[in-house]
Amino acid sequence: MKASTHIRVRYGEVDQMGFVYYGNYALYYEIARAEMIRACGYPYSEMEKEGTVMPVVKMNIKYLRAAKYDELIRIETSLLEMHPQPFITFHHKIFNEQDELINKAEVTLTFYDLSTQKRVAMPDRLRQYLNPYFAPAI
Amino acid sequence: MKASTHIRVRYGEVDQMGFVYYGNYALYYEIARAEMIRACGYPYSEMEKEGTVMPVVKMNIKYLRAAKYDELIRIETSLLEMHPQPFITFHHKIFNEQDELINKAEVTLTFYDLSTQKRVAMPDRLRQYLNPYFAPAI
Amino acid sequence: MKASTHIRVRYGEVDQMGFVYYGNYALYYEIARAEMIRACGYPYSEMEKEGTVMPVVKMNIKYLRAAKYDELIRIETSLLEMHPQPFITFHHKIFNEQDELINKAEVTLTFYDLSTQKRVAMPDRLRQYLNPYFAPAI
Amino acid sequence: MKASTHIRVRYGEVDQMGFVYYGNYALYYEIARAEMIRACGYPYSEMEKEGTVMPVVKMNIKYLRAAKYDELIRIETSLLEMHPQPFITFHHKIFNEQDELINKAEVTLTFYDLSTQKRVAMPDRLRQYLNPYFAPAI
Repeated sequence: MKASTHIRVRYGEVDQMGFVYYGNYALYYEIARAEMIRACGYPYSEMEKEGTVMPVVKMNIKYLRAAKYDELIRIETSLLEMHPQPFITFHHKIFNEQDELINKAEVTLTFYDLSTQKRVAMPDRLRQYLNPYFAPAI
Repeated sequence: MKASTHIRVRYGEVDQMGFVYYGNYALYYEIARAEMIRACGYPYSEMEKEGTVMPVVKMNIKYLRAAKYDELIRIETSLLEMHPQPFITFHHKIFNEQDELINKAEVTLTFYDLSTQKRVAMPDRLRQYLNPYFAPAI
Repeated sequence: MKASTHIRVRYGEVDQMGFVYYGNYALYYEIARAEMIRACGYPYSEMEKEGTVMPVVKMNIKYLRAAKYDELIRIETSLLEMHPQPFITFHHKIFNEQDELINKAEVTLTFYDLSTQKRVAMPDRLRQYLNPYFAPAI
Repeated sequence: MKASTHIRVRYGEVDQMGFVYYGNYALYYEIARAEMIRACGYPYSEMEKEGTVMPVVKMNIKYLRAAKYDELIRIETSLLEMHPQPFITFHHKIFNEQDELINKAEVTLTFYDLSTQKRVAMPDRLRQYLNPYFAPAI
């Protein structure tokens, strides 16, 4: 399962080195996974209204090249494995306008019920959308 | 009623001109008014737990000089008038390490009940703290 | 002279009231004026490479209604007056998906030469693009 | 080599789950390493003026518990290894007011000369400050 999103770098996201501030990539990954889930037909905003939120539990980033102001970057996002536990991991690759790989990241989120303050399983509706992508290869 | 707060400019707050990004001053005003209210003995976080939030309804800023990375700036905050309506206006002046005035702002907030989704009067507890400062001059 | 830009509200831009944080509107105005100038054929990123930056000197905002996560908001931007001095003022109106006016702002910027650290006149190239829009009504 | 820094969570850093937005921890690590280097007697702002900047090349984060608005969190930062290459890795642990470990991260930065656009060795002045901490255990 793959998705591709374009984002233009904002002035307020760039630091005085002239590079996107290292913390702001999190905003880009957020957009990429929101667009992927939206494409499934189940916008994350709807999931939240139904009571389940998705806090991030782990993030690993490699910054290979700088992204600069006004660049139109492309984020490729894929789901490579289905966790048995209530977790989901998005794999991101970011490319600049010259199609150079500039950033790689894995972001793992969990599912959490705000009312009970407890981790919960992935909502059935999302699982149904994602399952085909993780069907056994047999 | 006056309060003074010191803030050190973070790297992630500065843009590629080398100046604090114009939107990030909002974070500084937020800290200044939170510290002022905390000094009253009624932290804003407590007010929120009791059901009242304070959205901003108006903000006017003059940017006189740039603030730069790592500068220790000082924000002076005052309450000059008591509104009859459910509003409160904070007046901010920011000074750099050379004690030059670099920024002036007025931020007006309202009081809002998240459960009823309606504007409400200033919580009594806060009014009691603030009233003496606005006593008639007679 | 008018321009219209659509922006989807990001999760990281919304605070715990569930509203876009009041400082983050500055990012939206930035995008709106960058797109307007780009449409003139003179991207702001190019102006910076030629040595002129545009710091904000004044901003007035009215927050009329809240913008929420995942909403696709529309910003209408206009230039209403031509200043004789080295200033330019953008007028912004933001509408939500129900086409309700939720936010109004005026943002005034100056032109500044980073190498000489001095204010300069509006670059000729930009003035040529913008002049027709401010031609006398006679 | 260890350092400890306290930071109060700002309203604008918290998302609508009521948790610090996952990208904003980068700001906290930035403060922690800036304070550690400042304590060495060589503020990072001075290093930049002398021509060397420190872009982040790698970051791994584990989010164990949420940080919330107005909490006074504590970041413990340590340097555990000296890289032979032009890299430095900061290890961060964040604790909440109940002294619970809420976040762990490793942030690796490189040294970069903005004028030549090339990686450079760690500036001698910083190396002299840090060397004692990495002396062989013999």
